[in-house]
Amino acid sequence: MNLDELKKVLQSLESGEISWNEAYDKIKYQPYEDLGFAKIDYERNIRQGAAEVVYGEGKTKEQILEIVKHMLDKGEKSVLITRLSKESCDYIKGYLPVFYDEISRICIAGEKPSVNGKTGKIVVVTGGTSDIPVAQEAVLTARFYGNNVVSLYDVGVAGVHRLLDNAQVLSDARVVIAVAGMEGALASVVGGLVDCPVIAVPTSVGYGASFGGLSALLSMLNSCASGVSVVNIDNGFGAGYLAGMINKM
Amino acid sequence: MNLDELKKVLQSLESGEISWNEAYDKIKYQPYEDLGFAKIDYERNIRQGAAEVVYGEGKTKEQILEIVKHMLDKGEKSVLITRLSKESCDYIKGYLPVFYDEISRICIAGEKPSVNGKTGKIVVVTGGTSDIPVAQEAVLTARFYGNNVVSLYDVGVAGVHRLLDNAQVLSDARVVIAVAGMEGALASVVGGLVDCPVIAVPTSVGYGASFGGLSALLSMLNSCASGVSVVNIDNGFGAGYLAGMINKM
Amino acid sequence: MNLDELKKVLQSLESGEISWNEAYDKIKYQPYEDLGFAKIDYERNIRQGAAEVVYGEGKTKEQILEIVKHMLDKGEKSVLITRLSKESCDYIKGYLPVFYDEISRICIAGEKPSVNGKTGKIVVVTGGTSDIPVAQEAVLTARFYGNNVVSLYDVGVAGVHRLLDNAQVLSDARVVIAVAGMEGALASVVGGLVDCPVIAVPTSVGYGASFGGLSALLSMLNSCASGVSVVNIDNGFGAGYLAGMINKM
Amino acid sequence: MNLDELKKVLQSLESGEISWNEAYDKIKYQPYEDLGFAKIDYERNIRQGAAEVVYGEGKTKEQILEIVKHMLDKGEKSVLITRLSKESCDYIKGYLPVFYDEISRICIAGEKPSVNGKTGKIVVVTGGTSDIPVAQEAVLTARFYGNNVVSLYDVGVAGVHRLLDNAQVLSDARVVIAVAGMEGALASVVGGLVDCPVIAVPTSVGYGASFGGLSALLSMLNSCASGVSVVNIDNGFGAGYLAGMINKM
Amino acid sequence: MNLDELKKVLQSLESGEISWNEAYDKIKYQPYEDLGFAKIDYERNIRQGAAEVVYGEGKTKEQILEIVKHMLDKGEKSVLITRLSKESCDYIKGYLPVFYDEISRICIAGEKPSVNGKTGKIVVVTGGTSDIPVAQEAVLTARFYGNNVVSLYDVGVAGVHRLLDNAQVLSDARVVIAVAGMEGALASVVGGLVDCPVIAVPTSVGYGASFGGLSALLSMLNSCASGVSVVNIDNGFGAGYLAGMINKM
Amino acid sequence: MNLDELKKVLQSLESGEISWNEAYDKIKYQPYEDLGFAKIDYERNIRQGAAEVVYGEGKTKEQILEIVKHMLDKGEKSVLITRLSKESCDYIKGYLPVFYDEISRICIAGEKPSVNGKTGKIVVVTGGTSDIPVAQEAVLTARFYGNNVVSLYDVGVAGVHRLLDNAQVLSDARVVIAVAGMEGALASVVGGLVDCPVIAVPTSVGYGASFGGLSALLSMLNSCASGVSVVNIDNGFGAGYLAGMINKM
Amino acid sequence: MNLDELKKVLQSLESGEISWNEAYDKIKYQPYEDLGFAKIDYERNIRQGAAEVVYGEGKTKEQILEIVKHMLDKGEKSVLITRLSKESCDYIKGYLPVFYDEISRICIAGEKPSVNGKTGKIVVVTGGTSDIPVAQEAVLTARFYGNNVVSLYDVGVAGVHRLLDNAQVLSDARVVIAVAGMEGALASVVGGLVDCPVIAVPTSVGYGASFGGLSALLSMLNSCASGVSVVNIDNGFGAGYLAGMINKM
Amino acid sequence: MNLDELKKVLQSLESGEISWNEAYDKIKYQPYEDLGFAKIDYERNIRQGAAEVVYGEGKTKEQILEIVKHMLDKGEKSVLITRLSKESCDYIKGYLPVFYDEISRICIAGEKPSVNGKTGKIVVVTGGTSDIPVAQEAVLTARFYGNNVVSLYDVGVAGVHRLLDNAQVLSDARVVIAVAGMEGALASVVGGLVDCPVIAVPTSVGYGASFGGLSALLSMLNSCASGVSVVNIDNGFGAGYLAGMINKM
Repeated sequence: MNLDELKKVLQSLESGEISWNEAYDKIKYQPYEDLGFAKIDYERNIRQGAAEVVYGEGKTKEQILEIVKHMLDKGEKSVLITRLSKESCDYIKGYLPVFYDEISRICIAGEKPSVNGKTGKIVVVTGGTSDIPVAQEAVLTARFYGNNVVSLYDVGVAGVHRLLDNAQVLSDARVVIAVAGMEGALASVVGGLVDCPVIAVPTSVGYGASFGGLSALLSMLNSCASGVSVVNIDNGFGAGYLAGMINKM
Repeated sequence: MNLDELKKVLQSLESGEISWNEAYDKIKYQPYEDLGFAKIDYERNIRQGAAEVVYGEGKTKEQILEIVKHMLDKGEKSVLITRLSKESCDYIKGYLPVFYDEISRICIAGEKPSVNGKTGKIVVVTGGTSDIPVAQEAVLTARFYGNNVVSLYDVGVAGVHRLLDNAQVLSDARVVIAVAGMEGALASVVGGLVDCPVIAVPTSVGYGASFGGLSALLSMLNSCASGVSVVNIDNGFGAGYLAGMINKM
Repeated sequence: MNLDELKKVLQSLESGEISWNEAYDKIKYQPYEDLGFAKIDYERNIRQGAAEVVYGEGKTKEQILEIVKHMLDKGEKSVLITRLSKESCDYIKGYLPVFYDEISRICIAGEKPSVNGKTGKIVVVTGGTSDIPVAQEAVLTARFYGNNVVSLYDVGVAGVHRLLDNAQVLSDARVVIAVAGMEGALASVVGGLVDCPVIAVPTSVGYGASFGGLSALLSMLNSCASGVSVVNIDNGFGAGYLAGMINKM
Repeated sequence: MNLDELKKVLQSLESGEISWNEAYDKIKYQPYEDLGFAKIDYERNIRQGAAEVVYGEGKTKEQILEIVKHMLDKGEKSVLITRLSKESCDYIKGYLPVFYDEISRICIAGEKPSVNGKTGKIVVVTGGTSDIPVAQEAVLTARFYGNNVVSLYDVGVAGVHRLLDNAQVLSDARVVIAVAGMEGALASVVGGLVDCPVIAVPTSVGYGASFGGLSALLSMLNSCASGVSVVNIDNGFGAGYLAGMINKM
Repeated sequence: MNLDELKKVLQSLESGEISWNEAYDKIKYQPYEDLGFAKIDYERNIRQGAAEVVYGEGKTKEQILEIVKHMLDKGEKSVLITRLSKESCDYIKGYLPVFYDEISRICIAGEKPSVNGKTGKIVVVTGGTSDIPVAQEAVLTARFYGNNVVSLYDVGVAGVHRLLDNAQVLSDARVVIAVAGMEGALASVVGGLVDCPVIAVPTSVGYGASFGGLSALLSMLNSCASGVSVVNIDNGFGAGYLAGMINKM
Repeated sequence: MNLDELKKVLQSLESGEISWNEAYDKIKYQPYEDLGFAKIDYERNIRQGAAEVVYGEGKTKEQILEIVKHMLDKGEKSVLITRLSKESCDYIKGYLPVFYDEISRICIAGEKPSVNGKTGKIVVVTGGTSDIPVAQEAVLTARFYGNNVVSLYDVGVAGVHRLLDNAQVLSDARVVIAVAGMEGALASVVGGLVDCPVIAVPTSVGYGASFGGLSALLSMLNSCASGVSVVNIDNGFGAGYLAGMINKM
Repeated sequence: MNLDELKKVLQSLESGEISWNEAYDKIKYQPYEDLGFAKIDYERNIRQGAAEVVYGEGKTKEQILEIVKHMLDKGEKSVLITRLSKESCDYIKGYLPVFYDEISRICIAGEKPSVNGKTGKIVVVTGGTSDIPVAQEAVLTARFYGNNVVSLYDVGVAGVHRLLDNAQVLSDARVVIAVAGMEGALASVVGGLVDCPVIAVPTSVGYGASFGGLSALLSMLNSCASGVSVVNIDNGFGAGYLAGMINKM
Repeated sequence: MNLDELKKVLQSLESGEISWNEAYDKIKYQPYEDLGFAKIDYERNIRQGAAEVVYGEGKTKEQILEIVKHMLDKGEKSVLITRLSKESCDYIKGYLPVFYDEISRICIAGEKPSVNGKTGKIVVVTGGTSDIPVAQEAVLTARFYGNNVVSLYDVGVAGVHRLLDNAQVLSDARVVIAVAGMEGALASVVGGLVDCPVIAVPTSVGYGASFGGLSALLSMLNSCASGVSVVNIDNGFGAGYLAGMINKM
């Protein structure tokens, strides 16, 4: 409830249109539903322009099903579930129609949203083949929110001509998501080639001194290219969501 | 030079409009100037829609002056210099007109660019008073690129009503820059309140287990709010630049 | 044995009431029982007002059973065992009456202690659903020591209105336990809302740059709210025990 | 404003006692004062039972003076300033009556609050002589809030009899603050001796593998004694504040 | 394509030898093949004098097979696959002739390359027996590229005479690869004995404070011997490849 | 071979007692046996007064058996194998007489050495029950070298009277081995109680901010007690070996 | 007071030789002197066979003087002060006879103790010239306690023959102290050459990835040589003290 | 002395050509000079083909002078001193002819060696202007050893065309030294462009999450380009020395 709405409620009360009780209910109203173990945030669609997402890791399959069912019952057409195990997905499939991508562990319950072909392009690039699961999480998330997404995989900087040859694809992008593990240099090189925001996603791909993605994370944070910002290691969802938000501006 | 331009050059050569020498010069042309110790990137204004910026730290005052003079000579109207020491600024002031902000150590040589009142608003919030120098770097950078910037300082989450009372200011933003040290929680709370991109800037403000900004950095990377991305510790410039890029979309 | 008791023993010896041998036994007396692999501390109930707790991890099921049986034989009515695996619990169940909570892996052998309804309220809040196992360890520990405990789950700061709507619950608390992983911002926001001690429990919930709870831990240590202190990552027991200690003051 | 107050405002509006404008002002009222670079939180005294504290580091002396003057003007009798440099203190002294302790860099502007002899005792112990500045910050903070504080310095665990000989002092405590650098073992030993909350303050005292207090911090977080919680490295203020809060329960 | 080649293409176009279309194809030509999930870099053999290598970890067995088949189809005689699991190897074996070494998980598909007996010797030394898998990855990689390789295992510095007695073997080397975990001191001692480049490979062999190879890595980076450089933890391939490159100079 | 021996060999050669070939063999003689994958160091018994030990981790059971058999064949009466898996032990048992302790994974092949009752006492103390496997490795190693060892388990500092009541046992020690995880404070407290060397062994026992033993390791390195030195995390063998070395002085 | 002494006191009381008051005094007696900011531990000479040492860092010159004067007044002939700044030393020199070594910042107040020529030799080796200040702290500490000390500087492992040529010196040692920064490999090589305890002292000598001594510390903890233990970075005092303790056994 | 030389010495002794004393001197001969605080290694020129280098940091100016004078006296024509402060250089200049470069703090005492124009080219590239001091250390070191060195500064990957335009320079190199701070991506991009060894030098240039060069170091260690190895942060000397060694092969 913003200040304008507050004014209206108070004016209605002053004018006798509503009682103090009704005003009280409107002002104190909880814009979420309480399941005990979870509080589903319905106002979020209004507040943030996007339905809440269910993070699948660390929740039991029963918890996830209950949350999703409540959301669909309340009128959401589709619900995005990230990091859903195959096993939990199989359980939910018994109750609800779902789309599931095993590589990224992305699940969509309810209707699969359609992509709006008119929006600008989001380009998702990866350094290597092993970064694809994270990239795919970004791709499917952005598409869930109606974005037009192009992917360009295995264009790491050790063979920089593979990237340069796709300069045209990059130059069409309104937002680029750069997904890379190991030394994470992709974000800097891409950042220097394009004139749009670059969202860098470090991945935990690598071994030894990659320290579970720390190396790529630090590289990306220290990027000498402007226009680059970073999300958490392996956070394809966060990158896809943010890219969609920027793309719609 | 993109592929379409390449086609044109080659067709002109085939048709005899230009000689191979001219074609060669166009294709091989170096879009930067080489000062030996630095290579100034002039194509960047075209490629990235923004003039190159001079990072003042680690360069001598003579080097900075030489770079800036070359850039102004080549036709840039104004040059942004970040992290410029007072001492270097005083030296440069002897040769060029400059604007200097001591708090953020931002310097603008040449004309001070004007702000375009019609662009959306960028809101810069800080957790505390000590975060202001970094925030100010973001504010002045974004204004350098013509953005409309509003600042909202000292609204840290330990007194969350200070932030909530300014919900209206936040809701008008097209981009929010959240600047905070210590526990860096500001980014998450702001991220949950707005429906636009939030660029989080961890600062080195704090002591003990803040480990020079590491605590705020990790907090922001782990933000449970969607739409949040992170730049390097104390990187006000990077946040201001990226915010301006998004704001103009 | 404190100095007053020492005086009395010595005066009794001087007056001939007791022999030097009896005095010697009293002074040298070992207030614990030695099982070889463990030394059970019986004086602790007197010294610290609470019976010793058995930390289940890293002990064999036979060791745990032997320790618990000795404690019950010595007169403890109930023994708290933390981090007990399901398998060890099943073994112990063959010998002793036990209550077991699978989510938190808390086990109570012997009588289940009753809660004293008159004590102040301890409120346990979590950032998300995945933090519940740690929170539950705190809840059950505090109840074991007779405290009145209320839980409020999934009120993370990315949807801060969920927390604010429960301000009444928080304002009734004598102690708050804030359990959160990822960015751990919950402790700061709660700390700013209440006027009672807040015990922050970072959890290992998260991925990537959460580094097994390090991110939440650093956040909480750097909290800009006053009245917040921190226990080890995932240490629900420690928080529940300390909260009970404070609540009884 | 809590829900009960909200009800009353709305009932007054319904009954015509107040206009919607007055109601609006009451509900939207900002309980802080905005100085631009800082937002002073006046409601805090009500909300948290203690006036806001000024953290001196990272603020200019002019900023500090302006904040403190506003607070005194608004009716605070005394204001606590932590980590105030000698130089800033000298500046403020020109305008306001202050008490200053050079060792802890604690400053009190306005009246020096009196200690309430009837409250329980807070005992502050240190491992060594070098930990005294941090301990003194805790002592003076707790006294600022009217607590009865006893200090016991240089009782580190490498000569554990020095601690045991003071068992009587410890046993009289309602709260103990254990301040130690290096290996930080003091918190565990003290935690095993007393039956009251122990607030552990790691200090940056040490060299080499103490890594600026990290060693003591980790030790204290891993304490095997129950009832121990930890604040940030060198955070004497936080410990003193929390101890006072617990002591008054 | 280098500048000389560019000149020639342009001169041919000017002289009418080729059309702009042919010129365009030559200049824009992509020297890699796009499989969607991977882009195989064929120019690399020319650019770097060695065929691309397939890094087996993080790729499915189907992806690996497809990549390798394309490479062999394009004319590579043999393809090196590193970190190939036994299971993936068994799958590939169904389609292609392969050599597989279980200890190092090195696989060679196609013809096994022959060693050129005339090249200088590469000597691979290890600190202990547990370092052999990494050493073997280096040995087989170097041999794949035609190098003459000698191995000298279990000559760690705690029994330095074992190393000194093999001084003759070391003095014959053109390049030494020093493979060691734990304290990684081998690189320094070897570096002081020979007058050729030493490539140090830290291994994750060890426990406790070896922190997964970090200890050996730091040791080797801080080597006080000159002529020592370091590759990633457990990166036997990288060392073998680089050694071969140096050996052929 | 030391310089005196060298002189003698040269004098014998000069005097014609031996030929240059015999001298050559004596000087160049390799005091180890080369199995290819391992080099067994026989001179060590002379050089260091103790037979070489076989570190079981990272070696195959066949490698271990071959090494041990060669050592016994060369005249060692018994061979100590550390960190031997149950499975490898069962394999070796098929060929050689062995003693095996499952808790510490210590194995002795050949004759079990007898303890020399006349040597001073080594006292091994642990903080908790979970530290026993590491302590047992120290105990069995020290006994293997003929030392008189006493163990005192579960005397952690959170109940410091358990330690003080055993002051007599500690005061009889010539060397103390202090084994503790979590906060590792045991080493400091013990170090302050005894007047003999204390070898501190941090263990990986703990969770959360113990970071796999790092917390205990740092604590012990920062011990404020004199006479304390530290070995690697979980390195019971190292402590037992060193204690025996000191005990025999 | 040990148990035998306790028995005697109690028997004397029973027999009427002493009153309960006298017994009380004996039992409760505090074996240290309380200066408020420091508690000097006089019993330590009895308990640990060596007078307490004053750690100079973090204490004011007035505090140090007061502590030392009390110790000399109580009968200590000489007091060792470590890490004493030149400035503090000059101050103390005005009141007491002192010996001061600027390189190691070791100070001895009172009589300079004489060395006992009959004790075994302690050999102190360093990797480089820059490690000498730490080594010198060890040398002077060991001599303070009457030990015979030999130093052998700049024998780092990158020129291992410098160490081997001094094998005779090493073989005469009863204890070796190995002082090294950078890669810290010296401890392992020395550990493999001698049959006596090696105390490893990592130093903060180095740059870059030496991370203030962390590299040498980890190396030494992971030493593959037996008989090596480690003290804190730059802790020459600790090594010298422990070496003396072992040397006197 | 190698085994062949040993044979000859022994045969000469057998044949009576030399006495045992002469043999003894030859075998035991120390190939270094002992200054007490330093041991100068003269055999190194023979053993490693390059004179010893004096590392200036951590040595007093008197120590450096003494070492250099001894080396020149022994016949070295010129001595390389690294990391020499301006102040020490001024002192040495009073006694010896020196060449000094303030940017890299490299000093050459004695004759300045001449470059051998016939050797292959070493190309030194930097990411930015601030990396020049480290690069210059590499350049001057390589030239000291007679190498032909070309430098190419400020070609960081955020403007990758600056690097590609210099592809010709890179393709002429026999060894490339890639010097970069911040994200350190330069090494990977260069590594993918050339077919010669790349020595990567991370620098401490950067701020925030560059953590003193750690970010660049990890990037370079994780480089996905083959043929890249890494030296310590800011270790220009090491890179220059190794490049020279490889270049001469």
